[in-house]
Amino acid sequence: MPATLRDFTTDHRWMSINTATVRRQRGQDWGLLDILDACAARGIRAVAPWRDQVAAAGLEAVAQRIRQHGLELSGYCRGGMFSYTDDASRQAVRDDNRRALDEACTLGAPCLVLVVGGLPGALAGKPAHRDIASARAQVAEGIAALLEDARERRMPLAIEPLHPMYAADRACVNTLSQALDLCDQLDPARSGALGVAVDAYHVWWDPQLKSQIARAGRDRLLAFHVCDWLVPTRDLLEDRGMMGDGVIDLRQMRGWVEAAGFEGYAEVEIFSRENWWQRDGGEVLDTCSARYRACV
Amino acid sequence: MPATLRDFTTDHRWMSINTATVRRQRGQDWGLLDILDACAARGIRAVAPWRDQVAAAGLEAVAQRIRQHGLELSGYCRGGMFSYTDDASRQAVRDDNRRALDEACTLGAPCLVLVVGGLPGALAGKPAHRDIASARAQVAEGIAALLEDARERRMPLAIEPLHPMYAADRACVNTLSQALDLCDQLDPARSGALGVAVDAYHVWWDPQLKSQIARAGRDRLLAFHVCDWLVPTRDLLEDRGMMGDGVIDLRQMRGWVEAAGFEGYAEVEIFSRENWWQRDGGEVLDTCSARYRACV
Repeated sequence: MPATLRDFTTDHRWMSINTATVRRQRGQDWGLLDILDACAARGIRAVAPWRDQVAAAGLEAVAQRIRQHGLELSGYCRGGMFSYTDDASRQAVRDDNRRALDEACTLGAPCLVLVVGGLPGALAGKPAHRDIASARAQVAEGIAALLEDARERRMPLAIEPLHPMYAADRACVNTLSQALDLCDQLDPARSGALGVAVDAYHVWWDPQLKSQIARAGRDRLLAFHVCDWLVPTRDLLEDRGMMGDGVIDLRQMRGWVEAAGFEGYAEVEIFSRENWWQRDGGEVLDTCSARYRACV
Repeated sequence: MPATLRDFTTDHRWMSINTATVRRQRGQDWGLLDILDACAARGIRAVAPWRDQVAAAGLEAVAQRIRQHGLELSGYCRGGMFSYTDDASRQAVRDDNRRALDEACTLGAPCLVLVVGGLPGALAGKPAHRDIASARAQVAEGIAALLEDARERRMPLAIEPLHPMYAADRACVNTLSQALDLCDQLDPARSGALGVAVDAYHVWWDPQLKSQIARAGRDRLLAFHVCDWLVPTRDLLEDRGMMGDGVIDLRQMRGWVEAAGFEGYAEVEIFSRENWWQRDGGEVLDTCSARYRACV
């Protein structure tokens, strides 16, 4: 292990749980407050909640429970979805993203994670066109506008490049290089207001990964997410693996991130319809802790 | 339509059928010879057969039928799978790839398409390790060695970058940029012995696609494959779409390829377990022709 790497093997001080990881356990009616309680009971120090989970539990109740447990956030999921077909939908997206920023402030998040959107309409199965370049231009414009709101609130925006298999319907920013180009364009001063969320699942395959992590540097590395890529992968969205069950060298990647100056949480985010969502939530959280120590 | 673009709207002179497109039609016992007959009956001028289909029908019988119909090949599928765990498997791969080259010569193919392999063992569900950089190094070494055999036989090698969702198990060369770096490294003289196969399905998402196609140029562009990316995509391997049913702007991409000097076939390659493989093969071929004229 290089000297720069923090020791994660003896406790889970730097593990965060993305609350989607235990969002729909079979036969277990866990709302977000239950998830927060279960994390706190295990000494888990940080979480990253999703907006829909917060809305269902109530923003104030969630904020209070987070304070009560002394939990930190590693990020707030999520803003974005910037591509649009008309001015009305563009404005609606802007308004919704402002609300996401306000919620992130209320919850004390370190950043709002952005999943930027793909071709407009594609997520609903009805893409409005085939012009991904124009969607990318809309995304750049949308981030530029939201960055003003984010600066006012002192809430950093973290662009999350998504795996290219989501380019059509979820995010047309698909490499770290592309995300960092946007950062350089919109925040050349590296003010800290704009950066990236590096999710191992989305970027592990990239031949440029090491050099782009170094390029990002401490100023731009706002979040680091972990899970694993399974072989075979049976579903494009909901077949992510537990750390150690797949092919990603997570410790090597953390080494690169930490060498670039990142000192934050490793956030566990696993969508797993057929496996981990079928299990008891407590068992999943305990497994996350064990695998974090062994594999991250 | 830019002046450089060939007119594909009135006939299918430049369409090739990758024979996997009709490889397992439900209730229809089509071997490769039947497929060749069905293509010839429709005035289809070119095909790209797969090795397993050739082996099942017999190499000499296939070669004879191709000559009888006056068919051309747009490529031979496929060599590659270079990553290995020991010297014996490395040698076995080399030998097998030499046989693929010989078959390509017998069939009169313009190039052998290379799917380079991922992590050794991953395709069988048992990855030997997590070191994708070492797999990539083995791939470069394997192509370098095979290039000698390919030059002897005057049979060009076409590296096919595969979509990043296949990085673990099928090909760890995942962008056109990466494939062209290999070409520059192994054939700096641009001799024509080494190039790339550009498959729209694998590369459409790439923000660098236009510039990398231009970089490839006429010398390196050995094959151009088309199909479409569906939203949603229900299977990582066998849910490719018919041209026009998805989100890829195929005519724009063909414009880039032709602007770079490519004058060959647009090869239709569709793996579609739930849709096109369920239909009559003749209907599928007719649909390919119609969509080629309308969308490619």
